[in-house]
Amino acid sequence: MFLAKIYVTYKPSILDPQGEVIKSALHRMNFETVETVTQGKYFEVTMNNDDEAAAYDEAVAYTEALLINPNTETYRIDLLKSVEA
Amino acid sequence: MFLAKIYVTYKPSILDPQGEVIKSALHRMNFETVETVTQGKYFEVTMNNDDEAAAYDEAVAYTEALLINPNTETYRIDLLKSVEA
Repeated sequence: MFLAKIYVTYKPSILDPQGEVIKSALHRMNFETVETVTQGKYFEVTMNNDDEAAAYDEAVAYTEALLINPNTETYRIDLLKSVEA
Repeated sequence: MFLAKIYVTYKPSILDPQGEVIKSALHRMNFETVETVTQGKYFEVTMNNDDEAAAYDEAVAYTEALLINPNTETYRIDLLKSVEA
């Protein structure tokens, strides 16, 4: 069993209007120290694989095929071995 | 400068229909090893603080006040000291 934690964020060149709105709201709420905000997506996927390399390859494949928009978004995957007692 | 990485997920008792839809789609795409999928939100916030404890307290405060719905969602914060050259 593996747990893939997948973080999807906009590419740096892409405008993130939602992040800008959140930053403005935080400033209005007197959180003045906030400098930048980006909003992304976060997925946790459990996979019933035995082999780590295969699990990683699959995670990359389905992330690129379904979870992200490759034109605007980029991703990071943390793959954890998850042991059940 | 600190970078707060904030992960927002549904509480375990809350139904996550979007995660279920993604799981079904992955099965149709022959990613048969996928067992569970949850979708959440991911924020990266840079903060211009000197003090780590103060930065952490602020991050908790604005996360609970703005970023999550406390009825349905829970969160984790990783606070990283970020040094600029």
